[in-house]
Amino acid sequence: MIDFKPILKDIEPSKEEEEKVHNLADKLMEIINIAAQKEKITAEAVLLGSVAKNTWISSVDNGDNDLDIDIFIKFPLTTSPDNLKSLGLKLAKDCIEEADGVYEERYASHPYLTGTIQGYQVDLVPCYDIQHSRELKSAVDRTLLHTQYVMGNLKTGQEKEVRLLKRFMQMVGTYGSEFKVGGFSGYLCELLVIYYGSFLEVLQGAWDEWKPGIQIDLLDYGTADMFNEPLVVVDPTDGNRNVSAALTLQKMSEFVIAAGNFLKKPEKSYFYPKVIEYNQKDILEEFSQRETTSLILSFPAPNIPSDALHPQIRKTEKSLVKILETADFSVLGSDSWSNEGDVDENIGNKEDQVKRKEVVILLEMNTWSLPLYKKRNGPAIWDKGNTSKFLKKHPQSWIEGDQWKTLSEREYQDVDSLIHGILKSDGIRRLRVGKHLKKEILKNYGLRDVIDVLNVEDADKGLLEFLHHYLNKGEFLLR
Amino acid sequence: MIDFKPILKDIEPSKEEEEKVHNLADKLMEIINIAAQKEKITAEAVLLGSVAKNTWISSVDNGDNDLDIDIFIKFPLTTSPDNLKSLGLKLAKDCIEEADGVYEERYASHPYLTGTIQGYQVDLVPCYDIQHSRELKSAVDRTLLHTQYVMGNLKTGQEKEVRLLKRFMQMVGTYGSEFKVGGFSGYLCELLVIYYGSFLEVLQGAWDEWKPGIQIDLLDYGTADMFNEPLVVVDPTDGNRNVSAALTLQKMSEFVIAAGNFLKKPEKSYFYPKVIEYNQKDILEEFSQRETTSLILSFPAPNIPSDALHPQIRKTEKSLVKILETADFSVLGSDSWSNEGDVDENIGNKEDQVKRKEVVILLEMNTWSLPLYKKRNGPAIWDKGNTSKFLKKHPQSWIEGDQWKTLSEREYQDVDSLIHGILKSDGIRRLRVGKHLKKEILKNYGLRDVIDVLNVEDADKGLLEFLHHYLNKGEFLLR
Repeated sequence: MIDFKPILKDIEPSKEEEEKVHNLADKLMEIINIAAQKEKITAEAVLLGSVAKNTWISSVDNGDNDLDIDIFIKFPLTTSPDNLKSLGLKLAKDCIEEADGVYEERYASHPYLTGTIQGYQVDLVPCYDIQHSRELKSAVDRTLLHTQYVMGNLKTGQEKEVRLLKRFMQMVGTYGSEFKVGGFSGYLCELLVIYYGSFLEVLQGAWDEWKPGIQIDLLDYGTADMFNEPLVVVDPTDGNRNVSAALTLQKMSEFVIAAGNFLKKPEKSYFYPKVIEYNQKDILEEFSQRETTSLILSFPAPNIPSDALHPQIRKTEKSLVKILETADFSVLGSDSWSNEGDVDENIGNKEDQVKRKEVVILLEMNTWSLPLYKKRNGPAIWDKGNTSKFLKKHPQSWIEGDQWKTLSEREYQDVDSLIHGILKSDGIRRLRVGKHLKKEILKNYGLRDVIDVLNVEDADKGLLEFLHHYLNKGEFLLR
Repeated sequence: MIDFKPILKDIEPSKEEEEKVHNLADKLMEIINIAAQKEKITAEAVLLGSVAKNTWISSVDNGDNDLDIDIFIKFPLTTSPDNLKSLGLKLAKDCIEEADGVYEERYASHPYLTGTIQGYQVDLVPCYDIQHSRELKSAVDRTLLHTQYVMGNLKTGQEKEVRLLKRFMQMVGTYGSEFKVGGFSGYLCELLVIYYGSFLEVLQGAWDEWKPGIQIDLLDYGTADMFNEPLVVVDPTDGNRNVSAALTLQKMSEFVIAAGNFLKKPEKSYFYPKVIEYNQKDILEEFSQRETTSLILSFPAPNIPSDALHPQIRKTEKSLVKILETADFSVLGSDSWSNEGDVDENIGNKEDQVKRKEVVILLEMNTWSLPLYKKRNGPAIWDKGNTSKFLKKHPQSWIEGDQWKTLSEREYQDVDSLIHGILKSDGIRRLRVGKHLKKEILKNYGLRDVIDVLNVEDADKGLLEFLHHYLNKGEFLLR
């Protein structure tokens, strides 16, 4: 096996960083607690999340930065929701202002503040001080129970294992429980380490044992059969919850394959961003050589949260593919992409960001032009009423077996005109598309052949990466 | 309703013709009976079939000639099959020779002679003298029982109704129980008239009552549920037999629709060949306008009986379509045709006929050229053994859900090369084709675009008719 020490050196925070982060957290909690006392608010700040659990990953290189200082402001269960919200947000705002940070208000299941102080992202979240999931008033309250469970059950030394697992997941592309990814959450990684013991044992367990329907029930609740997601990990703090409910079969499969690849041939590179060698010319050549016709549909992304945007994009892509296939245009493959990134987290020059946001849907076609007619089924010849209506409309029909058949003219003979037809105001009801996307599409969209896009010098880098990845699916799973 | 008298005048034999046919039949039977007596063979000639039943159609115009003098030579049940064959055929041969006819030997369920005497087709068939279907030794023996039943149950005057029905069936294209047609036999027409009463009542009954599963059981055998063909007519001479077993759903449907068309707007023209107006230029234009690609595969017909040839042609056509569709070449329609006609019945200049016999399969394609790759399913990722084999072969695979997918190069990117590939000796095992056709195809076949065929001046008339009918299916059902 490879030596994990140099990897851990890169991803574990240094003593100095750890101190700096904890000092900042302590200071913020102190500000909040003093203010609460002063204003006679029964509330107490507490440090939760990966900083409290000591499982966060230091920001080496340009990988995803896991660091997020989560300070929760606990209120007694007797507090009214209105008071919790107004008093909690007031304490949070005053705190960030006193600490010279910038902030914005956000909504998860209830409002909280996210801010940047001394270069760190800090979330200040009002919550109820619950002891058990039965007392749960909003989803954010769980964080308290999750942090307590992990702190009480992760053995000393296992933090390293969690860090290796999270980092591995990030680098093979299976980390993150948000809709855009559909992968593993940090809490899920921690539970897997508690269950299997170590990074390597998690990988071995996944490779050897996982199949859709596998169940992990740390506290033997016996409730695992309630869930039908591909992986079931019963929440130790709530037997009625599957921690991996958001994990897609796709990401579960990808993790298992990456785990197997690593175990067969362990490489340090699994813990670092894969250097993707691509260039516009090669991508152009690959698309040309496939002899398909690939279309790029693009339109401005609506200004909605990432977790709302991505399911809508995916739904639109799937719906488009279905419409094309139904019209006999055979689709070889499709994918979608947005350069919106985590824009909301880059507080500051927001206007600039918004302007650049774009959604791209790629449609690779096996068939893109069709003859004039298509064969259509009519009623059975025994169905006299419908037969007579059908024949009035289609006098040129004939019988096959005991069913009427006819040739009807296609509405669209080529895929471009079909897509243009769908994306007009009188065609778009055929598309399953969220109202935000619909509005943007009706305002403005582009439809280009990928060859034309790639023939323009210096195509957008993000788009090239997307196209490269479309042509090289699964490339992150193997080093 | 239209006046049927002038129609009957055209299709009923004249008194003179009737006399001539019966005189010929009597003479032939006499020859046989005298010879049998002389040679001490216990056998007796008897007139059966449509001449005996007086339901044959006179040869007006160029419609199908129904006239076929069926003389059966009955042997006692105690005769051995070998004796029946040798003695029966001897009596038959001697008879035709004595009557100055020409003949050839044929096989149905056992051998018989078919000959031409004084311009009439005569079948001389040795059979057993059975009284009941229980005694049946070969299928030809049934003819005796069928003729007796019809003669005993068709009322005077109903012969006219049978003749109208047969003629109507011929002219709308649903008459003939041989494989090539899959339609109604003469005996079935007679039973329908016995059951419903008249030509018009048969049409009305079919239009009002028929649906797949309809049962007609003249003698209340109660055995109709034994059969699952679309139309069940229990044989009055054998409760265990469905008279319309050979009727296809297609021909049953066509008859019902033609019946409905006639009843809604009765026209004399339903009893005469439809004058089909077509010309090469219009057919060419129609094919061009459809923007499909239509291929004509042609090869010499093997010299086998029509009833053996046509199922083989149809099977080959269906198999070809399936292979094309499986390879993602979408087929809009297909049809097959052979100019072999009823060659065997034109005794005489046989060599000439054989040379002209050809099989044609038409394939009209929605898609005739495809990109280089096709997406292929691999094993589920959980299936480790097959995964590792699959990835060795297809290293560029990716995961969708929990299944491996890969792009594999198509063996054939265009429909022509696929067909050429199949029709070679190392490809033809993929085709479900009878050995007789296979032999011919491997020797020689042509594959041409219908446009090229139609651009040649004066294309074959039979082929043009076939193409016209392909473009105008069901045209005979409505006048």
